[in-house]
Amino acid sequence: MRRTIDWVNGAIEIIDQVALPGEYRTLRLTTVDELIGAIQRLAVRGAPALGGAGALGTALAAFAHDDPAEVRADAERLAGARPTAVNLSWGVSRALARLGDGPEAVLAEALALLDEDERLNHEASARAAELILEKCPRRPLRLLTHCNAGRLATVGWGTALGVVWHLHAAGHLEYVLADETRPLLQGARLTAWELAEAGVPYRVLPDSAAAAAMARGMVDCVVVGADRIAVNGDVANKIGTYGLALAAARHGLPFVVVAPSSTVDPELRSGDSIVIEERAAEEITTVSGTPVAPPGTKVFNPAFDVTPAELITAVVTEKGPLAP
Amino acid sequence: MRRTIDWVNGAIEIIDQVALPGEYRTLRLTTVDELIGAIQRLAVRGAPALGGAGALGTALAAFAHDDPAEVRADAERLAGARPTAVNLSWGVSRALARLGDGPEAVLAEALALLDEDERLNHEASARAAELILEKCPRRPLRLLTHCNAGRLATVGWGTALGVVWHLHAAGHLEYVLADETRPLLQGARLTAWELAEAGVPYRVLPDSAAAAAMARGMVDCVVVGADRIAVNGDVANKIGTYGLALAAARHGLPFVVVAPSSTVDPELRSGDSIVIEERAAEEITTVSGTPVAPPGTKVFNPAFDVTPAELITAVVTEKGPLAP
Repeated sequence: MRRTIDWVNGAIEIIDQVALPGEYRTLRLTTVDELIGAIQRLAVRGAPALGGAGALGTALAAFAHDDPAEVRADAERLAGARPTAVNLSWGVSRALARLGDGPEAVLAEALALLDEDERLNHEASARAAELILEKCPRRPLRLLTHCNAGRLATVGWGTALGVVWHLHAAGHLEYVLADETRPLLQGARLTAWELAEAGVPYRVLPDSAAAAAMARGMVDCVVVGADRIAVNGDVANKIGTYGLALAAARHGLPFVVVAPSSTVDPELRSGDSIVIEERAAEEITTVSGTPVAPPGTKVFNPAFDVTPAELITAVVTEKGPLAP
Repeated sequence: MRRTIDWVNGAIEIIDQVALPGEYRTLRLTTVDELIGAIQRLAVRGAPALGGAGALGTALAAFAHDDPAEVRADAERLAGARPTAVNLSWGVSRALARLGDGPEAVLAEALALLDEDERLNHEASARAAELILEKCPRRPLRLLTHCNAGRLATVGWGTALGVVWHLHAAGHLEYVLADETRPLLQGARLTAWELAEAGVPYRVLPDSAAAAAMARGMVDCVVVGADRIAVNGDVANKIGTYGLALAAARHGLPFVVVAPSSTVDPELRSGDSIVIEERAAEEITTVSGTPVAPPGTKVFNPAFDVTPAELITAVVTEKGPLAP
């Protein structure tokens, strides 16, 4: 199975996530500007995948410029392409640290990061699956997830959906409820596509129906990914995660966050100071190009929200549950 | 300002809510079957407006058939066109009770019901506005609402948006946050349109961003309509209302439900036994005709959820706050 993002013959290739589920195609990105464009329109997205994008983009810059100052300028623009996922700037920094050894060394570091991402997410999701089996007595399990934290959100394998793959393989999964995840419908478009490809039974629901699903006893556990994790255990993730956590708490359901440890921001004491990206009004006021609100409508369109640690059963990385 | 639904020259005329906000047009419905079709595709929707539709449709049937049994058969089909809003069958029953006096008497009863709907919603929303002014010290007020509980959801004036009109007229309103309300976007399409027409400042947000808006201190009070109210105060309303109530409770915000007393179902002791309509998969799997999920995707698409009375600050009808 091909990676979401990879280095192929001197350029970056990504699975174009804007085209899914209608079309499965890859895009070849040969400049940092092309990569920044792809990141900003979410052709490549998901915190761990953005870590890979940051590292590979830095390699692209290292090959493009002889002057290290130009490489650094490109790397800085790349790191700022989206503000919330800490993995993007982490991937840039890690690859950039090898710049003194030449572009091949930068690329080698980026490729090592890609390998590591797959391995760490496999491990983090295995540990989360164990925890969920401990916490939830009912078999087979009914999981609810939000947005896409699958292989498309990572270099490969996935975080929250990584848990699904482990539980499905072990015969412990009944179904997955996938929040459609407005405004860009990553749940309906990407998570559903991954689940369908893997033959996992699933249903898509409006984000606003998740609490009702819990009230009807249709959910055993909520499992999501993360875009940035504070050292106190507060989690920034796709908008809607906070409301889901409130509903899970009301119904006594475990709420589990799965992410590689690169998503933890050691500089961040709590979620209060996480910069939340606000996205364009058009994401809300039009669907498939058709206006769905009066002309000039203003919006509140934050890409992420912050779930306080007290509402989270566990944040699980490759090292196991995070100890705040 | 024309009514959402009215009797014009021997037929029913409605504002076509499917066409808004792109186009403002009216539809003329001359048979009960045309009316049922309009109700089922939500060209006319909203519990109080459906009360008017039930009564006017019964008048249409009374003029169409000489045989009372045929009128009753039409009325029964009409009352079952959508299962959750109690107002629909209430409107049918009320008009049908006059059938013995001939079709003109049925029509007179239906027209009285329309007048009454406007008057009672004006009164209910005035009482709710008073209550909100008591509960919320901050001026001017920032309200959050869900779906459309405006004049388009009623014969005229509105319930939750009726509160907005009262507070705006009194100079007490800063803005309204309107949840877009997936899947059919009644918030973005209809509530935003009404607010824009009335010159009330507003922003549209994804349903999943409402909890984040509360966490950021952007909301003073949540105000919604209702589709069916149990005598214990449990409320069935548009899917997502329950999650909103959970978030409001978390943030200590008043959560106020506004509805005419015809929305209270005296037969219903609690919300547990409310029949919740499940709607078509296509509402979730396509937007503006474009597929947004893999072929064959199954959905969970309940039109409503039930908010328990304990999460509701007050259910306000024209008689004032409901005493459970």
